[in-house]
Amino acid sequence: MTINDPQVVKEVTGQFFRYEKALMENDVETLNILFWESPHTVRYGPKEALYGYEEIAGFRAARDTSDIARELTRTVITTYGQDFATAFTEYRRLGSGREGRQTQTWMRMPEGWRIVAAHVSLLP
Amino acid sequence: MTINDPQVVKEVTGQFFRYEKALMENDVETLNILFWESPHTVRYGPKEALYGYEEIAGFRAARDTSDIARELTRTVITTYGQDFATAFTEYRRLGSGREGRQTQTWMRMPEGWRIVAAHVSLLP
Repeated sequence: MTINDPQVVKEVTGQFFRYEKALMENDVETLNILFWESPHTVRYGPKEALYGYEEIAGFRAARDTSDIARELTRTVITTYGQDFATAFTEYRRLGSGREGRQTQTWMRMPEGWRIVAAHVSLLP
Repeated sequence: MTINDPQVVKEVTGQFFRYEKALMENDVETLNILFWESPHTVRYGPKEALYGYEEIAGFRAARDTSDIARELTRTVITTYGQDFATAFTEYRRLGSGREGRQTQTWMRMPEGWRIVAAHVSLLP
Protein backbone atom coordinates (compact mmCIF):
# COMPACT_ATOMS: atom_id res chain seq x y z
CA MET A 1 0.00 0.00 0.00
CA THR A 2 1.35 3.37 -1.00
CA ILE A 3 1.45 5.95 1.75
CA ASN A 4 1.09 9.54 0.54
CA ASP A 5 0.77 8.95 -3.18
CA PRO A 6 1.21 12.53 -4.44
CA GLN A 7 -1.94 12.51 -6.58
CA VAL A 8 -4.07 11.19 -3.73
CA VAL A 9 -2.59 13.69 -1.28
CA LYS A 10 -3.40 16.46 -3.73
CA GLU A 11 -7.01 15.34 -4.02
CA VAL A 12 -7.59 15.03 -0.29
CA THR A 13 -5.82 18.29 0.46
CA GLY A 14 -8.13 20.03 -1.98
CA GLN A 15 -11.18 18.59 -0.25
CA PHE A 16 -9.77 19.39 3.20
CA PHE A 17 -9.43 23.07 2.34
CA ARG A 18 -12.80 23.08 0.60
CA TYR A 19 -14.23 21.94 3.93
CA GLU A 20 -12.25 24.58 5.86
CA LYS A 21 -13.49 27.35 3.57
CA ALA A 22 -17.08 26.15 3.97
CA LEU A 23 -16.62 26.09 7.74
CA MET A 24 -15.40 29.69 7.80
CA GLU A 25 -18.32 30.81 5.64
CA ASN A 26 -20.84 28.60 7.47
CA ASP A 27 -21.67 27.12 4.07
CA VAL A 28 -23.90 24.40 5.49
CA GLU A 29 -24.68 22.86 2.12
CA THR A 30 -21.02 22.17 1.36
CA LEU A 31 -20.32 20.99 4.91
CA ASN A 32 -23.14 18.49 4.57
CA ILE A 33 -22.01 17.35 1.13
CA LEU A 34 -18.57 16.53 2.49
CA PHE A 35 -19.85 14.22 5.21
CA TRP A 36 -20.67 10.69 4.14
CA GLU A 37 -24.46 10.38 3.90
CA SER A 38 -24.73 7.33 6.10
CA PRO A 39 -26.04 6.31 9.51
CA HIS A 40 -22.45 5.14 10.20
CA THR A 41 -20.92 8.60 10.04
CA VAL A 42 -19.92 9.97 13.44
CA ARG A 43 -18.77 13.43 14.51
CA TYR A 44 -17.63 14.32 18.00
CA GLY A 45 -17.58 18.10 18.46
CA PRO A 46 -16.26 20.17 21.37
CA LYS A 47 -19.48 19.52 23.32
CA GLU A 48 -21.64 17.27 21.15
CA ALA A 49 -21.57 13.63 20.03
CA LEU A 50 -23.43 13.12 16.75
CA TYR A 51 -24.23 9.66 15.40
CA GLY A 52 -25.25 9.41 11.77
CA TYR A 53 -25.54 11.89 8.93
CA GLU A 54 -28.95 13.14 10.05
CA GLU A 55 -27.74 14.20 13.49
CA ILE A 56 -24.72 15.92 11.97
CA ALA A 57 -26.84 17.82 9.44
CA GLY A 58 -29.29 18.81 12.18
CA PHE A 59 -26.43 20.21 14.24
CA ARG A 60 -25.16 22.24 11.29
CA ALA A 61 -28.53 23.83 10.74
CA ALA A 62 -28.69 25.07 14.34
CA ARG A 63 -25.02 25.82 14.89
CA ASP A 64 -23.81 28.79 16.91
CA THR A 65 -21.56 30.60 14.45
CA SER A 66 -19.99 33.09 16.83
CA ASP A 67 -16.25 32.53 17.27
CA ILE A 68 -15.93 30.18 14.27
CA ALA A 69 -13.13 32.09 12.54
CA ARG A 70 -9.86 30.27 13.09
CA GLU A 71 -6.34 29.86 11.82
CA LEU A 72 -4.76 26.46 11.29
CA THR A 73 -1.44 26.18 13.08
CA ARG A 74 -0.31 22.68 12.11
CA THR A 75 -1.90 20.41 9.52
CA VAL A 76 -0.95 16.87 8.53
CA ILE A 77 -2.74 14.94 5.80
CA THR A 78 -1.81 11.29 5.27
CA THR A 79 -3.19 8.99 2.58
CA TYR A 80 -3.22 5.18 2.63
CA GLY A 81 -3.50 3.60 -0.80
CA GLN A 82 -5.96 5.21 -3.19
CA ASP A 83 -9.10 5.41 -1.10
CA PHE A 84 -8.36 6.36 2.52
CA ALA A 85 -6.91 9.34 4.29
CA THR A 86 -6.65 11.06 7.64
CA ALA A 87 -6.38 14.80 8.23
CA PHE A 88 -5.12 16.34 11.45
CA THR A 89 -5.03 19.99 12.28
CA GLU A 90 -4.38 22.16 15.27
CA TYR A 91 -6.09 25.55 15.26
CA ARG A 92 -6.59 28.79 17.14
CA ARG A 93 -9.91 30.59 17.19
CA LEU A 94 -9.35 34.19 16.19
CA GLY A 95 -12.08 35.65 18.40
CA SER A 96 -11.54 33.93 21.73
CA GLY A 97 -7.98 32.77 21.15
CA ARG A 98 -8.98 29.27 22.23
CA GLU A 99 -6.94 26.43 20.79
CA GLY A 100 -8.29 23.17 19.47
CA ARG A 101 -7.64 20.12 17.35
CA GLN A 102 -9.58 18.48 14.55
CA THR A 103 -9.19 15.00 13.11
CA GLN A 104 -11.02 13.57 10.11
CA THR A 105 -11.02 10.20 8.38
CA TRP A 106 -11.78 10.48 4.67
CA MET A 107 -12.86 7.76 2.24
CA ARG A 108 -13.21 7.84 -1.52
CA MET A 109 -16.82 7.08 -2.41
CA PRO A 110 -18.38 6.76 -5.88
CA GLU A 111 -19.64 10.33 -5.34
CA GLY A 112 -16.23 11.69 -4.26
CA TRP A 113 -14.13 12.01 -1.11
CA ARG A 114 -16.24 12.06 2.04
CA ILE A 115 -15.59 12.41 5.78
CA VAL A 116 -16.64 9.20 7.51
CA ALA A 117 -15.42 10.18 10.99
CA ALA A 118 -14.54 13.45 12.69
CA HIS A 119 -13.50 14.62 16.15
CA VAL A 120 -13.05 18.24 17.20
CA SER A 121 -11.95 19.29 20.67
CA LEU A 122 -10.84 22.40 22.51
CA LEU A 123 -7.84 22.43 24.78
CA PRO A 124 -8.53 23.26 28.46
CA MET B 1 -16.93 -1.88 -0.60
CA THR B 2 -18.51 -3.84 2.21
CA ILE B 3 -19.34 -1.84 5.31
CA ASN B 4 -19.22 -3.85 8.53
CA ASP B 5 -18.27 -7.24 7.15
CA PRO B 6 -18.94 -9.38 10.25
CA GLN B 7 -15.54 -11.06 10.20
CA VAL B 8 -13.69 -7.75 9.92
CA VAL B 9 -15.82 -6.18 12.66
CA LYS B 10 -14.99 -9.13 14.88
CA GLU B 11 -11.27 -8.72 14.28
CA VAL B 12 -11.22 -4.98 14.93
CA THR B 13 -13.47 -5.29 17.97
CA GLY B 14 -11.02 -7.78 19.42
CA GLN B 15 -8.12 -5.40 18.90
CA PHE B 16 -10.12 -2.45 20.24
CA PHE B 17 -10.76 -4.24 23.53
CA ARG B 18 -7.20 -5.51 23.64
CA TYR B 19 -6.15 -1.85 23.54
CA GLU B 20 -8.71 -0.88 26.21
CA LYS B 21 -7.47 -3.63 28.53
CA ALA B 22 -3.87 -2.52 28.03
CA LEU B 23 -4.87 1.07 28.76
CA MET B 24 -6.50 0.08 32.05
CA GLU B 25 -3.44 -1.94 33.06
CA ASN B 26 -0.98 0.66 31.75
CA ASP B 27 0.53 -2.15 29.67
CA VAL B 28 2.82 0.16 27.71
CA GLU B 29 4.27 -2.62 25.58
CA THR B 30 0.87 -3.60 24.19
CA LEU B 31 -0.20 0.02 23.77
CA ASN B 32 2.90 0.65 21.72
CA ILE B 33 2.44 -2.51 19.65
CA LEU B 34 -1.06 -1.40 18.66
CA PHE B 35 0.07 1.94 17.25
CA TRP B 36 1.47 1.89 13.73
CA GLU B 37 5.25 2.16 13.96
CA SER B 38 5.54 5.09 11.55
CA PRO B 39 6.42 8.78 11.56
CA HIS B 40 2.95 9.31 10.05
CA THR B 41 1.07 8.11 13.13
CA VAL B 42 -0.58 10.93 15.07
CA ARG B 43 -2.29 10.94 18.46
CA TYR B 44 -4.04 13.95 19.96
CA GLY B 45 -4.59 13.45 23.68
CA PRO B 46 -6.57 15.58 26.14
CA LYS B 47 -3.63 18.00 26.45
CA GLU B 48 -0.92 16.73 24.10
CA ALA B 49 -0.39 16.56 20.34
CA LEU B 50 1.99 13.74 19.39
CA TYR B 51 3.38 13.39 15.86
CA GLY B 52 4.96 10.09 14.96
CA TYR B 53 5.38 6.77 16.72
CA GLU B 54 8.41 7.94 18.70
CA GLU B 55 6.58 10.84 20.32
CA ILE B 56 3.65 8.59 21.17
CA ALA B 57 5.88 5.94 22.74
CA GLY B 58 7.76 8.63 24.67
CA PHE B 59 4.50 9.93 26.08
CA ARG B 60 3.43 6.43 27.15
CA ALA B 61 6.63 5.90 29.07
CA ALA B 62 6.12 9.08 31.11
CA ARG B 63 2.34 8.98 31.40
CA ASP B 64 0.50 10.06 34.54
CA THR B 65 -1.53 6.96 35.39
CA SER B 66 -3.75 8.46 38.07
CA ASP B 67 -7.42 8.57 37.08
CA ILE B 68 -7.00 6.25 34.10
CA ALA B 69 -9.72 3.77 35.10
CA ARG B 70 -12.80 4.37 32.98
CA GLU B 71 -16.02 2.83 31.78
CA LEU B 72 -17.10 2.98 28.15
CA THR B 73 -20.59 4.40 27.79
CA ARG B 74 -21.14 4.18 24.03
CA THR B 75 -18.92 2.44 21.50
CA VAL B 76 -19.29 2.26 17.72
CA ILE B 77 -16.89 0.31 15.51
CA THR B 78 -17.30 0.61 11.73
CA THR B 79 -15.27 -1.24 9.11
CA TYR B 80 -14.79 -0.25 5.46
CA GLY B 81 -13.82 -3.11 3.20
CA GLN B 82 -11.24 -5.53 4.55
CA ASP B 83 -8.48 -3.20 5.72
CA PHE B 84 -9.86 -0.04 7.35
CA ALA B 85 -11.91 0.74 10.40
CA THR B 86 -12.87 3.51 12.79
CA ALA B 87 -13.66 3.12 16.48
CA PHE B 88 -15.56 5.68 18.51
CA THR B 89 -16.20 5.56 22.20
CA GLU B 90 -17.55 7.84 24.87
CA TYR B 91 -16.28 7.17 28.38
CA ARG B 92 -16.44 8.24 32.01
CA ARG B 93 -13.41 8.25 34.24
CA LEU B 94 -14.22 6.33 37.39
CA GLY B 95 -12.04 8.43 39.71
CA SER B 96 -12.87 11.98 38.74
CA GLY B 97 -16.17 11.30 36.97
CA ARG B 98 -14.93 13.31 34.00
CA GLU B 99 -16.38 12.39 30.64
CA GLY B 100 -14.47 12.11 27.39
CA ARG B 101 -14.43 10.73 23.86
CA GLN B 102 -11.90 8.66 21.93
CA THR B 103 -11.67 8.09 18.20
CA GLN B 104 -9.26 5.78 16.43
CA THR B 105 -8.60 4.95 12.79
CA TRP B 106 -7.33 1.40 12.32
CA MET B 107 -5.59 -0.13 9.32
CA ARG B 108 -4.67 -3.73 8.58
CA MET B 109 -0.90 -3.97 8.20
CA PRO B 110 1.17 -7.03 7.33
CA GLU B 111 1.91 -7.26 11.08
CA GLY B 112 -1.77 -6.97 12.10
CA TRP B 113 -4.35 -4.26 12.83
CA ARG B 114 -2.75 -0.99 13.91
CA ILE B 115 -3.98 2.44 15.00
CA VAL B 116 -2.83 5.03 12.48
CA ALA B 117 -4.66 7.98 14.02
CA ALA B 118 -6.18 8.71 17.44
CA HIS B 119 -7.85 11.61 19.20
CA VAL B 120 -8.86 11.68 22.85
CA SER B 121 -10.59 14.64 24.48
CA LEU B 122 -12.33 15.49 27.73
CA LEU B 123 -15.63 17.33 27.82
CA PRO B 124 -15.59 20.73 29.56
